[in-house]
Amino acid sequence: KRQGFPEIIYGEGKSPEQITAIIEAIKSQDNDVLATRIAKEKASVICEQHPELIYYDVPEILSWKQKPARVNESDGYIAVVCAGTSDLKVAEEVAVTAELLGRKVRRFYDVGVAGIHRLLDNAEEIQNATVSVVIAGMEGALPSVVGGLVAHPVIAVPTSVGYGANFQGLSALLAMLNSCASGISVVNIDNGFGGAYNAVLIDQLANKA
Amino acid sequence: KRQGFPEIIYGEGKSPEQITAIIEAIKSQDNDVLATRIAKEKASVICEQHPELIYYDVPEILSWKQKPARVNESDGYIAVVCAGTSDLKVAEEVAVTAELLGRKVRRFYDVGVAGIHRLLDNAEEIQNATVSVVIAGMEGALPSVVGGLVAHPVIAVPTSVGYGANFQGLSALLAMLNSCASGISVVNIDNGFGGAYNAVLIDQLANKA
Amino acid sequence: KRQGFPEIIYGEGKSPEQITAIIEAIKSQDNDVLATRIAKEKASVICEQHPELIYYDVPEILSWKQKPARVNESDGYIAVVCAGTSDLKVAEEVAVTAELLGRKVRRFYDVGVAGIHRLLDNAEEIQNATVSVVIAGMEGALPSVVGGLVAHPVIAVPTSVGYGANFQGLSALLAMLNSCASGISVVNIDNGFGGAYNAVLIDQLANKA
Amino acid sequence: KRQGFPEIIYGEGKSPEQITAIIEAIKSQDNDVLATRIAKEKASVICEQHPELIYYDVPEILSWKQKPARVNESDGYIAVVCAGTSDLKVAEEVAVTAELLGRKVRRFYDVGVAGIHRLLDNAEEIQNATVSVVIAGMEGALPSVVGGLVAHPVIAVPTSVGYGANFQGLSALLAMLNSCASGISVVNIDNGFGGAYNAVLIDQLANKA
Amino acid sequence: KRQGFPEIIYGEGKSPEQITAIIEAIKSQDNDVLATRIAKEKASVICEQHPELIYYDVPEILSWKQKPARVNESDGYIAVVCAGTSDLKVAEEVAVTAELLGRKVRRFYDVGVAGIHRLLDNAEEIQNATVSVVIAGMEGALPSVVGGLVAHPVIAVPTSVGYGANFQGLSALLAMLNSCASGISVVNIDNGFGGAYNAVLIDQLANKA
Amino acid sequence: KRQGFPEIIYGEGKSPEQITAIIEAIKSQDNDVLATRIAKEKASVICEQHPELIYYDVPEILSWKQKPARVNESDGYIAVVCAGTSDLKVAEEVAVTAELLGRKVRRFYDVGVAGIHRLLDNAEEIQNATVSVVIAGMEGALPSVVGGLVAHPVIAVPTSVGYGANFQGLSALLAMLNSCASGISVVNIDNGFGGAYNAVLIDQLANKA
Amino acid sequence: KRQGFPEIIYGEGKSPEQITAIIEAIKSQDNDVLATRIAKEKASVICEQHPELIYYDVPEILSWKQKPARVNESDGYIAVVCAGTSDLKVAEEVAVTAELLGRKVRRFYDVGVAGIHRLLDNAEEIQNATVSVVIAGMEGALPSVVGGLVAHPVIAVPTSVGYGANFQGLSALLAMLNSCASGISVVNIDNGFGGAYNAVLIDQLANKA
Amino acid sequence: KRQGFPEIIYGEGKSPEQITAIIEAIKSQDNDVLATRIAKEKASVICEQHPELIYYDVPEILSWKQKPARVNESDGYIAVVCAGTSDLKVAEEVAVTAELLGRKVRRFYDVGVAGIHRLLDNAEEIQNATVSVVIAGMEGALPSVVGGLVAHPVIAVPTSVGYGANFQGLSALLAMLNSCASGISVVNIDNGFGGAYNAVLIDQLANKA
Ligand SMILES: Nc1ncnc2c1ncn2[C@@H]1O[C@H](COP(=O)(O)O)[C@@H](O)[C@H]1O
Ligand SMILES: Nc1ncnc2c1ncn2[C@@H]1O[C@H](COP(=O)(O)O)[C@@H](O)[C@H]1O
Ligand SMILES: Nc1ncnc2c1ncn2[C@@H]1O[C@H](COP(=O)(O)O)[C@@H](O)[C@H]1O
Ligand SMILES: Nc1ncnc2c1ncn2[C@@H]1O[C@H](COP(=O)(O)O)[C@@H](O)[C@H]1O
Ligand SMILES: [Mg+2]
Ligand SMILES: [Mg+2]
Ligand SMILES: [Mg+2]
Ligand SMILES: [Mg+2]
Ligand SMILES: [Mg+2]
Ligand SMILES: [Mg+2]
Ligand SMILES: [Mg+2]
Ligand SMILES: [Mg+2]
Repeated sequence: KRQGFPEIIYGEGKSPEQITAIIEAIKSQDNDVLATRIAKEKASVICEQHPELIYYDVPEILSWKQKPARVNESDGYIAVVCAGTSDLKVAEEVAVTAELLGRKVRRFYDVGVAGIHRLLDNAEEIQNATVSVVIAGMEGALPSVVGGLVAHPVIAVPTSVGYGANFQGLSALLAMLNSCASGISVVNIDNGFGGAYNAVLIDQLANKA
Repeated sequence: KRQGFPEIIYGEGKSPEQITAIIEAIKSQDNDVLATRIAKEKASVICEQHPELIYYDVPEILSWKQKPARVNESDGYIAVVCAGTSDLKVAEEVAVTAELLGRKVRRFYDVGVAGIHRLLDNAEEIQNATVSVVIAGMEGALPSVVGGLVAHPVIAVPTSVGYGANFQGLSALLAMLNSCASGISVVNIDNGFGGAYNAVLIDQLANKA
Repeated sequence: KRQGFPEIIYGEGKSPEQITAIIEAIKSQDNDVLATRIAKEKASVICEQHPELIYYDVPEILSWKQKPARVNESDGYIAVVCAGTSDLKVAEEVAVTAELLGRKVRRFYDVGVAGIHRLLDNAEEIQNATVSVVIAGMEGALPSVVGGLVAHPVIAVPTSVGYGANFQGLSALLAMLNSCASGISVVNIDNGFGGAYNAVLIDQLANKA
Repeated sequence: KRQGFPEIIYGEGKSPEQITAIIEAIKSQDNDVLATRIAKEKASVICEQHPELIYYDVPEILSWKQKPARVNESDGYIAVVCAGTSDLKVAEEVAVTAELLGRKVRRFYDVGVAGIHRLLDNAEEIQNATVSVVIAGMEGALPSVVGGLVAHPVIAVPTSVGYGANFQGLSALLAMLNSCASGISVVNIDNGFGGAYNAVLIDQLANKA
Repeated sequence: KRQGFPEIIYGEGKSPEQITAIIEAIKSQDNDVLATRIAKEKASVICEQHPELIYYDVPEILSWKQKPARVNESDGYIAVVCAGTSDLKVAEEVAVTAELLGRKVRRFYDVGVAGIHRLLDNAEEIQNATVSVVIAGMEGALPSVVGGLVAHPVIAVPTSVGYGANFQGLSALLAMLNSCASGISVVNIDNGFGGAYNAVLIDQLANKA
Repeated sequence: KRQGFPEIIYGEGKSPEQITAIIEAIKSQDNDVLATRIAKEKASVICEQHPELIYYDVPEILSWKQKPARVNESDGYIAVVCAGTSDLKVAEEVAVTAELLGRKVRRFYDVGVAGIHRLLDNAEEIQNATVSVVIAGMEGALPSVVGGLVAHPVIAVPTSVGYGANFQGLSALLAMLNSCASGISVVNIDNGFGGAYNAVLIDQLANKA
Repeated sequence: KRQGFPEIIYGEGKSPEQITAIIEAIKSQDNDVLATRIAKEKASVICEQHPELIYYDVPEILSWKQKPARVNESDGYIAVVCAGTSDLKVAEEVAVTAELLGRKVRRFYDVGVAGIHRLLDNAEEIQNATVSVVIAGMEGALPSVVGGLVAHPVIAVPTSVGYGANFQGLSALLAMLNSCASGISVVNIDNGFGGAYNAVLIDQLANKA
Repeated sequence: KRQGFPEIIYGEGKSPEQITAIIEAIKSQDNDVLATRIAKEKASVICEQHPELIYYDVPEILSWKQKPARVNESDGYIAVVCAGTSDLKVAEEVAVTAELLGRKVRRFYDVGVAGIHRLLDNAEEIQNATVSVVIAGMEGALPSVVGGLVAHPVIAVPTSVGYGANFQGLSALLAMLNSCASGISVVNIDNGFGGAYNAVLIDQLANKA
């Protein structure tokens, strides 16, 4: 089990047959299954043979767990923060991944910088998280504002949402790397899985002690 | 007088002698003088011969007016908004240019996105302006937040302040062009003069009627 | 109503069902509807259920107003300026948005820089506008020439029209940001909505006083 | 105290006088001083008046603490990992910052990817850290290899060390954002302070419980 | 025969008819056929008329040889090294091309940098090759690690595998050009043929003497 | 004599000694001397030994001709067109080079796009040229306007004049490559010599027949 | 007639109906028709109604001339030079456009830099042209070699042929702008029409005198 | 001794004291010294203490060998090929490094693509080399032409020589990566050492057998 978790499948560029084979190998060793970037059509091909798999269609995640993740009630939680519907796919990739990896998650999904009061209304609950994952496309400003409000680590996930001078997420990526707030680190454009994984590692460290 | 103002001198790449000659030509026609991008050393050479000129050393502006700008007390004002000392040079290029062009200006110079409450404390006074000029380097997030708070036009001025993945102001420029807030338009990196000029045109339109 | 206008729907990346739901929510609160970036196919799905909506097929805008916009006859107008058929889609996004937001618009649609006399023939009528929105792809030169002719603010909208070293609108965007004319500010590539919105804010300021 | 620490001064672009003033303000409130990016010449001007300040000349850090950081002996440590002398300046910015912020640090400074065995010889001690900060210029490959070896979070700091197609650190930055190892997040090019700050937040979380 | 080999066909952008014509011209002069970048559909059209051609479907290569390549048993071999399934298409373009050009090849296809021990387990066999061709996408770190392990020339082939800040292979390309290991040279993104060709030239030189 | 002209020296990156040696070799073969990019300091070192050389200090050209260029009075002329003082250095590199190569030149040096009427006042004289060389920095719009006015070939020379999103001349270069006017071709940024050379070739063809 | 020629239609982004309408307008004024970038499918729709139009399917040009272009036998010719089949589409856009505009053309279509002797075999005939248009993708080296061989103007046309670090023609474009040979100017990527148009203007000047 | 050679010192960014220390450590172990990128001033400081070192001032290399490299007379040679004086520094870094590493070198230093006949005059002697290292700035076309002439491996070294759209060597780098000739691989911009090192490895393989 790589880094404490069973192998995680990255579905992009793999055929349903290849993915099915990997899933079967994992299950044959009594491991749980977590596969990201599984487009809807691929998922339905795979699920025909493996109806026990659960498909999360917003984040395009396919998973199967022997027993539900035992969440430790006294543990902290991961705040997943974004501005609205356009970034939902990536935000849900973060949230569902973190949950499947056994962490508690709270979603803050309508708190963009252009309507700062909705964010402030949620400030306290975000501040109480162990770690935040902040997802933003376009100008990528949200992690800076959240970073200024909280005293815990912020993982920033730029998305490719936007057009024109957005250059497929470059604008958000550069903005996040240049944040004037401290305590922010960045993963690749649209890399919701990576954002979740980092947050899970931190949340585990904070709660294991 | 182009666009209602006397000619404005752009000092970059001109010698003190060239600038002095242009200033003398302007004055000989009973016009006022406004010159930007006049480095301190150049300014002192020029001022030796023309001690009547006033030098603003933060924005590196050199000016002379026959009579002080008559500000109409009932007019609105331009809000000049930035995060702190690093962007001061450009912010003052905006503020001083606008003032010399005869407009009222209010400065909001310590209201960065990483400390959102200082901005909110000033929200009402910024909202009451006719137009805002928002200056920001690094992640360039401030115009989006201001744009969400105000109902008037916002002119965003990216600065080259930053390092690394800032790419000489590219990160702030792209962020501002991709703002999720409506009512924001953008000028060139470090172009404080341009930000002021656009705001002055709008402020005049709003107050002439 | 954000910034004096009802919510404006951005259709890109939303399904007909999602858009229909938002439209119904808006109408149920007795508000007017304005939705941009609604591809023809989406529009016909939506209009089946809501035949009262009007579809503008060049700019791909969908709208419904309880009563026609009351245009104040004594008000000024917004000049919408472009070079020809290739930029028409974006130019009409500007013009129709501004009209639906209640402003007077005059269109100047065949006045490219390579045939400067057609532009000069229209110079006076453009000069008399309150504000111009200038749309251009390829070398993006038109805002500079218009900016030199008029004394009012110019909003420049680069388009992605072109090929090769155009890099999806980058050439026009950079040209506009570097304009040697004063009084020009820039919005994102293909952002006709943004161009209109800025112009409307300015035109309202100029006419409300 | 922002985020649990006293204000941290960023010295780039500030004059010795400005920095001295800020330092005095901090000290007058009985706070500790931490200032990064203080070039040697600036530091000696400042230290003439404030000989109590300690200057770290490799990382160009200036600091003063009322009492030495109390390191909790049972706490974990931060691994600071790099390939060699060229990245030393940034690596020391990480290490000294983290130490001044009260954390234990272990340095692994000669473990580049082109001599993989030196890295493997240190693998266990790096694995036992709470969190690693991995600094690399040129091809930026080291975080991927470290990330594969450890099960804790890795903060990757690209440096501008290199020439030609390195493009001032772009090659290392892109490599790190695209790492095939999980659990890696990235800060700005040459941002040793940011790398340290993130690691300190995580190390505190892991040890506070 | 260009450079000792018969003409090699580059199939991209050529119609099945054009390719068939070139193949027939080559065969009519008693030469062997080697064509790369022949998509599956094209290949089946061509093979209908020329069932004697062999199609390698992973690397999309089409070939025909009068007699099998005589491999000299005492010769050295080319190591073809990559991290896993995503780079397989390019790796096989390298391996199959080299074999068809008459060289011995050993494949090392699961030895990525994030699991360094699998690479080390194969170190000796890679070191014993005459030359290595190392294929990698994403952060492109593998050639640096291999280059540090071996004393022979390494040809690095970046692939476009990845997303976001990968920019279609740019991240891997830049990483490889900036490798801190000596003895590495680089070919174009996805240019498996070029990687093979260079390796074949070197392997021939090493074995002809 | 390469292409009908004696060798032309490119001074950048050559020492005064190297340049002197080349000049002496050229003169020893009874050829004329033309050297571009000779900074003032270099020129004075060279001229100490060769006081017969003429130095043009705006374009930084050094030259010596056995007899003055015989200009054929009935020949056409090259129009050299630019917007103002900032582009003067490159414009004079064009004009002086063309004159030294024996062609007639007319200068139009204050005809920028932001003041279109000055250009139109000169339109007829520009139209009567055989070929135009149009120099522009910033938004690089001038060649498009000139190209629309004239029926002869236009050589466009982008300059690096500007700042911010100008990216050292990239904005002007891209604009010129994307010109909507026909009959425009482009040389490298700041390449006044290249602009002149192309114009001279065309002017010779037009006048030799 | 702009610039001595009837209007030339640019077909990209226009519907068959729009193109047909423009063609009919042109013909109704007794003008000849020249339309570029007319994809095969569009052309067949248009030709159903206008079977008199001639379609050139390699360059995708549609044309109709009242009487064949009268080529003046004593005139010079334009050399159209490229490396092979990949650049044929653009090369034929050059050649056919120039012929339809009434000039003589000689094609040199298999003379790439990697087989320099084929180019040298044709050197004399290329040298005897009035002007050359050199088309190249990938490394874009051909114009430099041709420019060194001929004493007449060379118009360089970069193409988007290639992959990977070719970046859609950027590599060829940059190479051509940086050519070490004199007498080369460049048009946009894939702009065969522009290459032809410039050459025609020059060829007319050279032959009219 | 890594890869058969003693450690090679990279002088950039190291102080004379640091370099001296490394040199003394190397000599104390009876090894030979090879240091590249040692600017003239640094070299003279170092040579004061170590007058036995030999300084090559064109390539800025510092070296000391116990006994002269024994060149095997029957061995092949490395061809070092470039266009002229501007690329000399890098070409000599290649040639001197290769010689100090014990290989035979032939220099071909005036064979640029714009004067193809000088290259052809040397073709046979270049063809007879074991391997070529081809250095070029600006359009970077030379490796393609050489690659077409020879049947052995070509190592291409782009240089940063040029200006404007050269972008510090990017144009030459991209050109070389996109070469249409087979058998070419590329190292970093200005990396003469890397070019030499690869060639030496190949030349050793070819001659050891
Ligand atoms: N700081 C500035 N940045 C950009 N443009 C400026 C600035 N200051 C003045 N300008 C513009 O430059 C013009 C004067 O340019 P010039 O004639 O070269 O001195 C003015 O009319 C303004 O449009
Ligand atoms: N064509 C457009 N381009 C850019 N922004 C738009 C456009 N149309 C609407 N918007 C903005 O998008 C917002 C709505 O976004 P959403 O909530 O995603 O529908 C509106 O309030 C506008 O600010
Ligand atoms: N293939 C082409 N590439 C670039 N420009 C072209 C091409 N064909 C025609 N043009 C130009 O486009 C103009 C017509 O554009 P339009 O009015 O949009 O049809 C012509 O006058 C030419 O200048
Ligand atoms: N001019 C050069 N360019 C690039 N790499 C070099 C150069 N000279 C030496 N090197 C490499 O740098 C390594 C030494 O780096 P360092 O330990 O920093 O001195 C050597 O082993 C070579 O691989
Ligand atoms: Mg914080
Ligand atoms: Mg607003
Ligand atoms: Mg104006
Ligand atoms: Mg790990
Ligand atoms: Mg090695
Ligand atoms: Mg014209
Ligand atoms: Mg020539
Ligand atoms: Mg070859």
